Amino acid sequence: MLRSLLFKKLEQKEQDMINHYKYLHQYPEPSFNEAKTSQYIESFYNDKDVVIHKRIGGNYGLIVEIEGSLPGRTIALRADFDALNISEDTGLSFSSKHDGWMHACGHDAHTAYLMVLAESLIELKDHLPGKVVIIHQHAEELAPGGAIDMLNSGYLNDVDEIYGIHLFPDYTPDVISYRKGPTMGGRSLFHLKVIGKGGHGSSPHLANDAIMAASTFVTNVQTVVSRRLNPFDMGVVTISSFNGLGSLNVIQESVELAGDVRYMESRIGHQIHDEIVQLIEGLEETFNIKCEFNYELDCIPLINHYKQTDYLVDILATSQGDYFESLKEHEQLTSSEDFASYLEKIPGTFFFIGCKPYGVDEAFYNHSPKFIVNEDALLTASKALGEVVLNRLSIE
Amino acid sequence: MLRSLLFKKLEQKEQDMINHYKYLHQYPEPSFNEAKTSQYIESFYNDKDVVIHKRIGGNYGLIVEIEGSLPGRTIALRADFDALNISEDTGLSFSSKHDGWMHACGHDAHTAYLMVLAESLIELKDHLPGKVVIIHQHAEELAPGGAIDMLNSGYLNDVDEIYGIHLFPDYTPDVISYRKGPTMGGRSLFHLKVIGKGGHGSSPHLANDAIMAASTFVTNVQTVVSRRLNPFDMGVVTISSFNGLGSLNVIQESVELAGDVRYMESRIGHQIHDEIVQLIEGLEETFNIKCEFNYELDCIPLINHYKQTDYLVDILATSQGDYFESLKEHEQLTSSEDFASYLEKIPGTFFFIGCKPYGVDEAFYNHSPKFIVNEDALLTASKALGEVVLNRLSIE
Amino acid sequence: MLRSLLFKKLEQKEQDMINHYKYLHQYPEPSFNEAKTSQYIESFYNDKDVVIHKRIGGNYGLIVEIEGSLPGRTIALRADFDALNISEDTGLSFSSKHDGWMHACGHDAHTAYLMVLAESLIELKDHLPGKVVIIHQHAEELAPGGAIDMLNSGYLNDVDEIYGIHLFPDYTPDVISYRKGPTMGGRSLFHLKVIGKGGHGSSPHLANDAIMAASTFVTNVQTVVSRRLNPFDMGVVTISSFNGLGSLNVIQESVELAGDVRYMESRIGHQIHDEIVQLIEGLEETFNIKCEFNYELDCIPLINHYKQTDYLVDILATSQGDYFESLKEHEQLTSSEDFASYLEKIPGTFFFIGCKPYGVDEAFYNHSPKFIVNEDALLTASKALGEVVLNRLSIE
Amino acid sequence: MLRSLLFKKLEQKEQDMINHYKYLHQYPEPSFNEAKTSQYIESFYNDKDVVIHKRIGGNYGLIVEIEGSLPGRTIALRADFDALNISEDTGLSFSSKHDGWMHACGHDAHTAYLMVLAESLIELKDHLPGKVVIIHQHAEELAPGGAIDMLNSGYLNDVDEIYGIHLFPDYTPDVISYRKGPTMGGRSLFHLKVIGKGGHGSSPHLANDAIMAASTFVTNVQTVVSRRLNPFDMGVVTISSFNGLGSLNVIQESVELAGDVRYMESRIGHQIHDEIVQLIEGLEETFNIKCEFNYELDCIPLINHYKQTDYLVDILATSQGDYFESLKEHEQLTSSEDFASYLEKIPGTFFFIGCKPYGVDEAFYNHSPKFIVNEDALLTASKALGEVVLNRLSIE
Repeated sequence: MLRSLLFKKLEQKEQDMINHYKYLHQYPEPSFNEAKTSQYIESFYNDKDVVIHKRIGGNYGLIVEIEGSLPGRTIALRADFDALNISEDTGLSFSSKHDGWMHACGHDAHTAYLMVLAESLIELKDHLPGKVVIIHQHAEELAPGGAIDMLNSGYLNDVDEIYGIHLFPDYTPDVISYRKGPTMGGRSLFHLKVIGKGGHGSSPHLANDAIMAASTFVTNVQTVVSRRLNPFDMGVVTISSFNGLGSLNVIQESVELAGDVRYMESRIGHQIHDEIVQLIEGLEETFNIKCEFNYELDCIPLINHYKQTDYLVDILATSQGDYFESLKEHEQLTSSEDFASYLEKIPGTFFFIGCKPYGVDEAFYNHSPKFIVNEDALLTASKALGEVVLNRLSIE
Repeated sequence: MLRSLLFKKLEQKEQDMINHYKYLHQYPEPSFNEAKTSQYIESFYNDKDVVIHKRIGGNYGLIVEIEGSLPGRTIALRADFDALNISEDTGLSFSSKHDGWMHACGHDAHTAYLMVLAESLIELKDHLPGKVVIIHQHAEELAPGGAIDMLNSGYLNDVDEIYGIHLFPDYTPDVISYRKGPTMGGRSLFHLKVIGKGGHGSSPHLANDAIMAASTFVTNVQTVVSRRLNPFDMGVVTISSFNGLGSLNVIQESVELAGDVRYMESRIGHQIHDEIVQLIEGLEETFNIKCEFNYELDCIPLINHYKQTDYLVDILATSQGDYFESLKEHEQLTSSEDFASYLEKIPGTFFFIGCKPYGVDEAFYNHSPKFIVNEDALLTASKALGEVVLNRLSIE
Repeated sequence: MLRSLLFKKLEQKEQDMINHYKYLHQYPEPSFNEAKTSQYIESFYNDKDVVIHKRIGGNYGLIVEIEGSLPGRTIALRADFDALNISEDTGLSFSSKHDGWMHACGHDAHTAYLMVLAESLIELKDHLPGKVVIIHQHAEELAPGGAIDMLNSGYLNDVDEIYGIHLFPDYTPDVISYRKGPTMGGRSLFHLKVIGKGGHGSSPHLANDAIMAASTFVTNVQTVVSRRLNPFDMGVVTISSFNGLGSLNVIQESVELAGDVRYMESRIGHQIHDEIVQLIEGLEETFNIKCEFNYELDCIPLINHYKQTDYLVDILATSQGDYFESLKEHEQLTSSEDFASYLEKIPGTFFFIGCKPYGVDEAFYNHSPKFIVNEDALLTASKALGEVVLNRLSIE
Repeated sequence: MLRSLLFKKLEQKEQDMINHYKYLHQYPEPSFNEAKTSQYIESFYNDKDVVIHKRIGGNYGLIVEIEGSLPGRTIALRADFDALNISEDTGLSFSSKHDGWMHACGHDAHTAYLMVLAESLIELKDHLPGKVVIIHQHAEELAPGGAIDMLNSGYLNDVDEIYGIHLFPDYTPDVISYRKGPTMGGRSLFHLKVIGKGGHGSSPHLANDAIMAASTFVTNVQTVVSRRLNPFDMGVVTISSFNGLGSLNVIQESVELAGDVRYMESRIGHQIHDEIVQLIEGLEETFNIKCEFNYELDCIPLINHYKQTDYLVDILATSQGDYFESLKEHEQLTSSEDFASYLEKIPGTFFFIGCKPYGVDEAFYNHSPKFIVNEDALLTASKALGEVVLNRLSIE
C-alpha cells in the first residue's frame, strides 16, 4: 500500500531521475573535490522538510535525515557521487564536460535515483514509520574513502540497518543480484624500497645489486599465495611497479617496488603482510641489503550480513516478475567498495542492479571510457531500495 | 744518441706540456663535439713541416704525419682528447670552465705530452728513419668511438705498429706497467623489452605479468656466468636498468631492461649473446610473452700483441732506474678502451704510466670528480713513448 | 510410519552394527585385496531375498539389489570396505590383527551400518516402493578406485539417485553435515624427468645441469597458483619429490620430480596440466634440456548435486532434535573420495556424520594410527541414510 | 757430464721402467690400501745403499733418501701410486687383474720412471752433490691425500725444493709443459640439510616445504659466482646432489644437498664459504626453516712457485730439440692434485709430460676406462726430472 504509493511516485518521477543523471554525468568531479556536485545535491534538498548535514568531516559528503511521522526504526541508504580520471569515449550527447574526468562507475546514476527516492519518501513522510537516513557520499574511489567521514560524523550512530546498491553491466536492468558474506575484495597496498650498494657494471663484487635482490623478491613473493595461504583463502599479491630505471654501466643502488594485495577477509590481508615481512627479512640477510617497507590498508573486504541479505532476498523475492525478472546470487568480486566500512559497524547488505544496455552481448565494464548505464536501471534501483527501506523501517 | 737528443728536448719542453695540459683541462668538450680542442691542436701543428689530416670521418679527430729523412718503418702513436659529463671537484686553479664537463680521465694530459713529443720528433726529422703517425683521436669515451673513424680514413693503412698509453693513478709516475694479451675489457650493451598483457591487479589470470617474467629473467640470467661460461673465462652480465614503473592497481603490460656485458675476449661476448637469446626464447615460452632484444657491441676487448709488448718491455727494461723506477705487469682491467680497435688491425701495445699524486695513499680514480693527474707523468710518458718509437722505426 | 518401523528395527539391531564393525576392524585388508571382507559381506546376504552381484569387475566389490513390493524409484546407497597401510595404535580391545594394516578411515563402520540398514530394508520389502541398490565398494583408497568398477558393471544404469556418507571426527555423532557443489578435492599426480647432460663438477659449461633446471622449475611452478589460476579457484601444486641424488664431483645428468595437484573442479585440474606443460616447454628452451612429463588423474573432485543436497537437507531438517542435534554446512575438504565418480553419472549427495569420541577436545583424524570411531555414529548414520532412502524411493 | 752419465743410464734402463709400469698396471690398489704396491717398491730399494722410511704416517707411503757424496742442497722428487675405482677397458695385454680397479691416471707410470731414476741416481752417488729425497706417495686420489702424511713425517723438513710431474694425454711425449702460479684447482665440498616441516600435499600452509626452500637455494647460489666473486677470480659452485626423494602426497620435511666448489686460489674458496653462509642465513629467514651446513676442504689449489718454474724452464729450454721437441705453457686445470700441499710448504713446481699415444687425434683422458699411457713418456719424464734435480742440487 505504502509500497504502491511509493512505486507510483517513482514511476512518475522517472524522467527526473534521468535528468539528474544526465546533468551529473556532464560534470564529473574528482574524489574529495566534488564541490559542485555537493552543491547540486544540497540545492535539491534545501527547500524540503528534512535535516541536512553538509561538508561532513570537512569534505563534500551530505547526510539527509527524513523523519517519518510514525514510530519505527532507522534505516540508512547510501549513494556515492565522485568520478574518475578517465577521458570519456561513449559518444553520448550528454558526455562529460570536464576534460579527463568521467562518471565511469555509475555514481551519477546512484546519486540520481537516490535523490528522487529520497524526495518520494519525503513526500510520504506522513505515512512513514521511523527515520530514513540518506547518505550522499563523496570519495568512494580514493582511499581512505568518504565512508569513514560519514561514520565518524556520528550521524549514523543510531542507524539500525544500511543498504546500498551498485549498478553493474553483467546483466540488463531486469536482474537484481545479491550475495551473503564476503562479497567484494579487500585491498592493501605496499611500497618496498630495496637499498643495496651501487657500483660499476664491470665490478659486481664491489657492489650490491638492488635489481638482483628485488627480482628475487618478486619470484619469492609468489610463495605467499602458492604455499603460505590456505588454498581455500582467496589472495592476490601483484607487484605492480618495479622502478629500477638506471644508466647502462652502473649497478643500481636502490629500486622501488609497489604492490597491490587483494583478499576477501581481513585476516588474510594481515597474514599476507606478515609473510611479506618475513620474506623481506630473508631478503636483507640473503643479499646484505636494507629494505624500507610500507604496507597500508586501502579498503577492507565488503562482507554482507547474512540476516540483512536474507531479509533483502525475502522482500525482493515477492517482487520478482513484477518490476524485474530475476533475482540471482552474485559471484564474488575482487574489486573493492568502501561501503565495506559501513558494514563493519552497521548491519546491512550491498547489492547489484544490472545496467547493461539492451542488445549488447558484452557491455563495457565499469571504469571503461565506454561505460554506459542503461537508464532503465534507475527506476529499478529506486523501487528495489524503496521497498527494502519501507519493509525494514516498520519491522519489529 | 737520437734518444738522448730527444730526451733533452722533452726535458726542455716539460713546461710546455704542462701548459698545454692546463689549458686543455680548462676547456673540456663532449665526445664528438670537441671543436675547440681540435682547433687548438690544429693550430699547434699548422706552422710545422708535417701533413695534417683534419675532420677525420667528418668528426674532430686529426692525423699528423711526420716523415723522417731516413728510410724506415711507420709507427703510429695515439692520444685521445674528449672529456666527460662530470662536474669537476678538484679545487685545481685551472679547473674546468665548462660547467658539468671535466677532463676526468687524463685525456688532456695524453694530448699535451703527445703534442710536445710530436714537436720534438719534427725537430729531429733530419735524423729520423721512417714515418711517425700522430693520432689525435676524438671520442674515446662514447660508442662507437673515434678509433673507427681513424681506421676508416685509410691514413693508417701502412702503419707497421701502433703504441698508446693511459695514465692510471694506481702508481706514482715512477712506475710504468704493461700487459700481454687480453688487457682491457670488451663491452656490449643490450635492451630487452618484455611484453606481456596488462590487466587489473586483482585478476592475474586474465593478464600476463611482465614484471613477473622480467624478474625471472634477472634470476635466470645469472646462470650465464655461473654455469654457461667456462669458469676460466671472465664475463659479467649486469642488469643495470629495470624500467617497470607502473600504477598501483594495474598489472604491467611491459617492462624494459637494459644490460651491461663485460668480457676479455670477443668470443665470450658472442657466447653471452647466444646464451641470452636462448634464455629469452625460454622466457617467451614459459610466460607466453613476447620479447624485443637488442644486443650491440660497445667496445671490443683490448688485446695487446705479444711481440710488440715484448719489444716494449725490452726497450723500457734498459731505462728502468733512469727516468722511471719500476716496470711492472699490470692486472687485467674490466674497463674498456677503443684503442682496442687499432690493435685489431695493427700490431701494437697499450701501456700505463702512473699518475698518482705524491703523498697520497689511494688516489681518486679516473672518472671521479676529484681525479687529479700528477704532472710528472707527462714527461715520463713522452720519454717512454719517445724511446719506443725511435726504437721501432729503425728496426729491421 | 515406514520411517518409524525402520528406525525401530535399526535401534534393535544397533548391537549387530557394532559387532560387525568390531569384527571388520580386526581384519583390515588392502585395497583391491579385500577377499575375506568381501566373503564376510556376501555370507551376510546369502540367505536373504535379494539379488547379489559379486566380484564386480573382477575385484571384490558387491552390489545387492533390494526390490520393494510397491512401484517406485531406484536409489543407491554406498559404503566402502578397504583399509590402510597403517600400524594401529589405538589400544582398542578389537585392534587390527593384520600387522601394518588398519581400518583408519572408518570404512569398517560404513560397511557395518549399511549391512544392517540393508537387512532392515529387506525385512520391510513388502512395504517398500521402488528398489534399493546397496553398493559395498572395494578400493576407495587407491587409484583408480573401486567406484569405476561399480559404474562399469552396468548394475547402476537405472539408479535414479545415490547417497553416501563418511564419518568425520570434526564433531560428535549428534551432528550431521552436508555441502552443495564442490565438496571434496580432486587430485592429479605427475612425474617430471628433467634430462640434461652430465659432466664434471668443475666444468659446468660442458654439461647441462639437471639440478639447476629442475630447481628453476620448482620456483617457476609457483606461478601456476599465484598468477595463472583465477584467485577464486582453489588449486595446490606440491613438488613432493625431488630425486637428484648424485655423487659429489659430478654434475647431474637427470633428476626426477613428482608432484601432487589438488583442486575443487575438474577444469582447474586441466588448467594446471596445461600451465605445467607450458612451463616445461619454456624450461626445455631455457636450459636446453629434455623433459618427460606424465600427468594422471587420481580422483576427480566430489561435486554434490544441488537438488539432491536440498532434498537431503529438507528431509533431515525435520529430524533435527530427534536422533541428532544439529544439521550444519560442512567446509570444503581438500581430501579426495571416489564417490565423486558416482556423482559424475548419477544425481546424489555425499554427506558427513560426526564420529568424534565424547569428552575429547580434538580427535585424532582419519588416517591417524590413533583414529577411533564413536560407536554412536553407526545408528545415526543408518537412520539418516534410512530416512533419506525411504523418502526418495517414493517421490514422484 | 753428470747429465750425460745419467741420461745414458736412463736410456739403458728404459725397458726396466716399462716393465715396472706394466707390473704395477696389473695390480692397481685403492687409495690408502696400497699394501702390495708399497711392498713392491720397498723390495726394489731394499738392497740399495739408501735410507728407506716406510709406512709413513701409518699408511703405505715411502720416502727414500739418496745421500750424495758431494756437498749440496736437498731436492725432493715425488710420484704417487694409488689407483681408481674404474673397470679397465683398454684391451691392453697387461690390463688390471684387480676387478673394478684401474691405474687410469698414470700413477703406475709415475712410480715406474721414478724408481728407475732413483736407481740411476743411486748408482751415481759418488758424483752426486747434496741429497735427493724420493717420495713414493700413497693416496693422491682421495682426501685428505697422502701428501699430508709425508709432510707431517718430518722427513721433508730440510728439503730445499720439490719437483713432480704428471702425465697428461693433451700431447705426445715430445711435449713438456709448465705453468707459473695457480695451475691446478682447489676444491671444497659441502653438505646442506634443509629442515622444514612436513605436511599433507593439499595443505601447504600448515607445512614448510623443504623442496621449495632448497630449490630457491639452488637458484640463489648462482649469484655467488655471477655477482659476488671478482669476475677475474675463477670459481665454480655445483650443486651435485639434491636428495629430496619423497612420497607423492607428502610435503617434504627435509632435503639434503651436496655441493662441489672449485677455485684457483684458497682465498676464493674461503669467500665462497662465507657467501654460502650468508645465503643460508637468508634462506632460514625467508622460509622459516633450519639448515645444517658443513663445508670442508678437499684439496688446496696447486700454485707453482714462480722462481722454481723459471729454473725449470731455463733448464729444459737447453734440452728442447734434444730428447723432446717442445716446451709449452700449460693452461690452467680445474682438476686437483695434492702435490699442492708440498708447494704450500716447499718451493717447487709441478709440470706435465705428454702421454698421448701416437696417431690418435684426441686421446682418452685421465680417469677414462680407456686411458692409455704412451710408453715413451717414461724415458722423457725420467730425463726431464733427472736433469732438473742434477741442476738444482748443486746450485749456490
